[in-house]
Amino acid sequence: MKNFTYKNPTQIVFGKDTHQSIGKHIADSKIKKVLLTYGSERIKEDGLFDIVIKSLEEHNIAYVELGGIVSNPVLSKVYEGVNSAKDNSVDAILSVGGGSVLDSAKAIAAGALYSGDVWDFFIGEKVIEDALPIFDIITLAATGSEMNTFAVITKEETNQKFSIASPHVYPRVSIINPELQKSVSQEYLVYSAADIIAHSIEGYFTATYHPDIVAKYVEANISTVIATTEKLIEDKNDYDARAEFAWAATQALNGTTYLGVQGASFPNHMIEHSLSALFNVAHGAGLSVVIPAWMKWYYQQNEKQFERFAQNIFGKKTALEGIEALESWFNKIGTPTRLSQFDIHESSINNIVENAYTNAQFFGLSKIYTKEVLTEILHLAL
Amino acid sequence: MKNFTYKNPTQIVFGKDTHQSIGKHIADSKIKKVLLTYGSERIKEDGLFDIVIKSLEEHNIAYVELGGIVSNPVLSKVYEGVNSAKDNSVDAILSVGGGSVLDSAKAIAAGALYSGDVWDFFIGEKVIEDALPIFDIITLAATGSEMNTFAVITKEETNQKFSIASPHVYPRVSIINPELQKSVSQEYLVYSAADIIAHSIEGYFTATYHPDIVAKYVEANISTVIATTEKLIEDKNDYDARAEFAWAATQALNGTTYLGVQGASFPNHMIEHSLSALFNVAHGAGLSVVIPAWMKWYYQQNEKQFERFAQNIFGKKTALEGIEALESWFNKIGTPTRLSQFDIHESSINNIVENAYTNAQFFGLSKIYTKEVLTEILHLAL
Repeated sequence: MKNFTYKNPTQIVFGKDTHQSIGKHIADSKIKKVLLTYGSERIKEDGLFDIVIKSLEEHNIAYVELGGIVSNPVLSKVYEGVNSAKDNSVDAILSVGGGSVLDSAKAIAAGALYSGDVWDFFIGEKVIEDALPIFDIITLAATGSEMNTFAVITKEETNQKFSIASPHVYPRVSIINPELQKSVSQEYLVYSAADIIAHSIEGYFTATYHPDIVAKYVEANISTVIATTEKLIEDKNDYDARAEFAWAATQALNGTTYLGVQGASFPNHMIEHSLSALFNVAHGAGLSVVIPAWMKWYYQQNEKQFERFAQNIFGKKTALEGIEALESWFNKIGTPTRLSQFDIHESSINNIVENAYTNAQFFGLSKIYTKEVLTEILHLAL
Repeated sequence: MKNFTYKNPTQIVFGKDTHQSIGKHIADSKIKKVLLTYGSERIKEDGLFDIVIKSLEEHNIAYVELGGIVSNPVLSKVYEGVNSAKDNSVDAILSVGGGSVLDSAKAIAAGALYSGDVWDFFIGEKVIEDALPIFDIITLAATGSEMNTFAVITKEETNQKFSIASPHVYPRVSIINPELQKSVSQEYLVYSAADIIAHSIEGYFTATYHPDIVAKYVEANISTVIATTEKLIEDKNDYDARAEFAWAATQALNGTTYLGVQGASFPNHMIEHSLSALFNVAHGAGLSVVIPAWMKWYYQQNEKQFERFAQNIFGKKTALEGIEALESWFNKIGTPTRLSQFDIHESSINNIVENAYTNAQFFGLSKIYTKEVLTEILHLAL
C-alpha cells in the first residue's frame, strides 16, 4: 500500500425519520441562519420542505431560500447563492436535494468566504482556505457528495464542467434517509447505479498500484449496487435494498476505496463531463455510455484486473466477457450504453473530443487521452 | 439497514517513515507537553524511542515518560498515568506501542480530566465527558484501538477485564507505519490475526440483523487477514502484506463493520477476557481457543450465516465445514485452539465460568450465557 493520510469529519445520520432532526443538528453547531438550497419545487409538493422548515423553526434557525438548482448544476446559480449568502450573512448552507444541490451548496459555502470569483477554485487559480459549514439531507444516492470533498459545477458560457476538492467542504452533518430516496424515478435510479459503479471502477482499473483489500471493498460496493438495483426495480418499496444502495453510494466515493492506491485517474468522468456539458445528458446516463467503450479501449493495459472484475462481479473468465456482462447489465436495467440513445451521432464526435481534450489537458491526462484516443473511444460508444 | 450515526474524527497517517512526523502532528494541535506511554524497553533498544524524542524536541514539545505497560494492561498502571498526567499538567497523551499501550493511554486521557476514580467509567458508574487529546504510533496491528472508541483494562484485585467506549477517546492522530510492525514476533502476529478475525465475526454471526453490504466488508477483512498472515509467515519483510494486514486490523473495529447492524454482541471477547484475567494468556491466543468452541455451540442459531462464511471464506459448503476450516487454519498458522495448550484443564473450568458469568451479567448477556452454557462452550475448548 502507498502512504496515505485520511480523516473524514462528516457525521452521517442514517435511517428512517432522520431528516426530522435536521434543525437539532444545525442548532448543535450554534448556527442561527442558513441558506437553504434545493432543486425543483417537488420538495414543496411532497411535504419534505415543510418538515425541514418546521425543524428549523423549532430550533430558532432563520433561513433564506435558493431553489431551482438543476442537474449538471451551473455556475450562474452558484454566483446567485454566493451573493445571497453574503448579503444575508448566513452562518451555514443547508442543502436539501441530490448531488447537484449539494455540490452547489459546497461551491457556495466556499465562495461565501472568498472575496474573488468562486470559479477561481475550479480552474486551480486559488485554493479553498475556508468555507461555511455545510449540512445536508441527501435525497438521491449517487455522487457520494454527502461524505466527500468534491463538487462539480458547469460554467455555461465555456461548457466547462469542472470540479473542486477540498477538506473544507466536507459536510458537517449529512442526513441519509433511504425512505426519502424512494421518490427517485426508476430512470434516475439506474443512472445512479451507473454513477456509483463508475466511482468504483475508475480507481480499480486505472491505478498503477491497487491494494487487494481495497479491491475487495470496491467489489463489495459494486456487487451491492448490482443486487440492490435489481431488487429496487422489482419493488421500489424494498427499504433494505434502498438503504444498502444508498450506503454503497456513500462508501464508493468517501475516499476509503482510494486509500493506499497509486496513480488512479478518472477518464470516464472526464469524457462524460463533456457529454453533460455539451448535450446536458444526465451524468449517470452519460457514464453508462462511456464506461463500456472506455473499457474496450483500455482493458489490455490492465488485463489481470479486468479478469478479476469479470470473475468476482459476474462469474466470467476473460476481460472481454466481463465488459460484455457489464454492458448487458446496463442494458438490462435500462441505462443507455450508446451515444445514439441520446441522438448523438458521428457528426458530433469532433465537438466532444475538443471539449474532452481540454479536460484531459487540465487533469494532466492529455498524453494518454490524445484527440486520436478520445475519438477512438467515442467511436466505440456510437 | 438499521438507523445509525457515524462520525470518526481520527486522522490516520499511514505508511513508511510516517512516525518521524509525530512531533509535527502534535504541534499542529498547539500541544506543549505530553505524557509518553510505552511498554517494554525494547523501543529504546530498537531506536524508535530516540526518533520520537527527536521529533518532539524539534517541535518544542516536552514529555514525561510512563513505560512498563504490559499486555492485558492493568488498572494500577493507569492510576500511575493519571496521577502523572495531573501532577505534570500534560496537555495530551502520546502512546507508542500496541493496543495495550494505547488502551492505557485512552484510560489515562479520560482519568486525567476526572476528579473521581477512572474505574468508574469501566463499571458504568460514570460516563466519560471529556479526555485529553490522544496521539499514537501503533506498533502492533490487532485491536483497532487506533481508530475507535474502545479501551480494555484489567483490575488486578478483582480479575475484572472491562472496557470503555467513548467518542472522547478517539485518537486525534494515529500513525500506522507497517514497517515498525515488522518487529512483532511470529507468535504475536498469529495471535493478532485471531484477534482481527474475532472482531470481524462477533457482529457477523451474532447480529439479529446484518446488512449484506456490511457482511461483504467483513469478509473482505477476514480474507485479507488470512492471505496476508500466510504471506508474512513466509516472508516477514513483505511490506504490502504487512500494510494490508495492518489496515484490515484498523478497518475491522473502527465501527464501519457494525453500521446498520442490529443486536450484535461480543461473546467470544467476553469469555476470552476471563482467560486473560485469570491466566494472563495473550488476548489473541485466548480468542483462537474460544472461537471454534463458541462456533460449535452457536452455529445452529444462525446457520445460514455460517454457511455463507464457509462458502465465502473457505470455499466450503456446510457450517461445520467452515468451523473446521477456521480451526484448521488457526492450527496451521500456530495460534492455539485448545485450553490444554495453556495448561488449562477441566479442573479450572468452574473458575473461568464464574468469572465469565460476571462479565455476562455486566453485558446483559447472562440469560443466554448461563453458567451451564459457558461450561458447555469451555468443555468444547478443552
